[in-house]
Amino acid sequence: MSSISIIGTGNMARTIGARAIAGGNTVEVMGRDESKAADLAKALGGGTTTREWGTAPAGDIVIVALLHDGVVPAVTQYGDALAGKVIVDISNPFNPTFDGLAHGEETSVAQEAAKAAPAGASVVKAFNTVFRQVLEKGRPDVFIAGDHAQAKASVEAFIKSLGMRPLDVGGLKMAHWLEGAGVVTVGLANHGVGNLDFALGITELRA
Amino acid sequence: MSSISIIGTGNMARTIGARAIAGGNTVEVMGRDESKAADLAKALGGGTTTREWGTAPAGDIVIVALLHDGVVPAVTQYGDALAGKVIVDISNPFNPTFDGLAHGEETSVAQEAAKAAPAGASVVKAFNTVFRQVLEKGRPDVFIAGDHAQAKASVEAFIKSLGMRPLDVGGLKMAHWLEGAGVVTVGLANHGVGNLDFALGITELRA
Repeated sequence: MSSISIIGTGNMARTIGARAIAGGNTVEVMGRDESKAADLAKALGGGTTTREWGTAPAGDIVIVALLHDGVVPAVTQYGDALAGKVIVDISNPFNPTFDGLAHGEETSVAQEAAKAAPAGASVVKAFNTVFRQVLEKGRPDVFIAGDHAQAKASVEAFIKSLGMRPLDVGGLKMAHWLEGAGVVTVGLANHGVGNLDFALGITELRA
Repeated sequence: MSSISIIGTGNMARTIGARAIAGGNTVEVMGRDESKAADLAKALGGGTTTREWGTAPAGDIVIVALLHDGVVPAVTQYGDALAGKVIVDISNPFNPTFDGLAHGEETSVAQEAAKAAPAGASVVKAFNTVFRQVLEKGRPDVFIAGDHAQAKASVEAFIKSLGMRPLDVGGLKMAHWLEGAGVVTVGLANHGVGNLDFALGITELRA
């Protein structure tokens, strides 16, 4: 089982926190608003703790559950407090019309977060192609990308503890295309596929 | 059932042609090398015909089964012969390291083909996230993108005739992100997922 710190107190923090607890992991939450963090910890139960925003997380895996434009600022603000951590970026940096990314260049929030992260930290992209409703109740495929095998292995173990299937797509550069896969997922939702109750995944050959 | 013209005589032309015949569609093949086209038509059977390269196809749906850098030149060369047709681009314009696209800008082979296509033609992106082995024998999800509802409806009907499930991701602009999803698919294959015997798709919520 893993020790998880979640930066953020919103819907995604709540959803991932609940699954993490259910999967037998240790969870702490960190919110800019300490009362919101305390409320979330209480709601999650299972021994969930809180820790002051910006201080060194207890968890080996730090999940940044913020809106996409808050991820790099948070990693920058935490700075050396994230040294040695596995930082998980789950964000979807959609453009205003949801048919492209907010950044024009071929980069990703995950790659930018890696630039902002301290030495010894490692960023892994994960979970962004899974709608929240499925993350809450389902057993979806979870695509991951990252440059460090050990960091990816620890995120894979965490994903398995949630009853989900981790699928490695390659180095952190691939986070750009996973963010693009997030765009595809929303495109499907906007064109008649499901009701935000599906996830991207793979299907093995079936004859 | 649909009337299909396939431009190209390679592996993908053979694979799609065979599935199209098995699905009860009418098929013709068009090759620069007429003897190769004749050989393929014979191999496909089911009344498959050939037609001279560059002349107006008989099919309502024209599948361009060429390497990605051959698609726009072929559409340009055919020119007005494609007027009124639904042109299907199935290509994956990978970069040399297979972790990105050959074109740096946020475009796609499908969008460039649409610029080269004559008035009244409509381009639909489809099939590029399905490995050939699965296209040959499986019943995968097939993502499609295009700007014209009627063209997409005809491609969807064709896909259903193959026993596959069409999933609309939106306008032709989304072809860029479907090409990115092709990059993700290859990334998965290169990192231990399957043996080119899977396809990208969606999974509905399963508790």
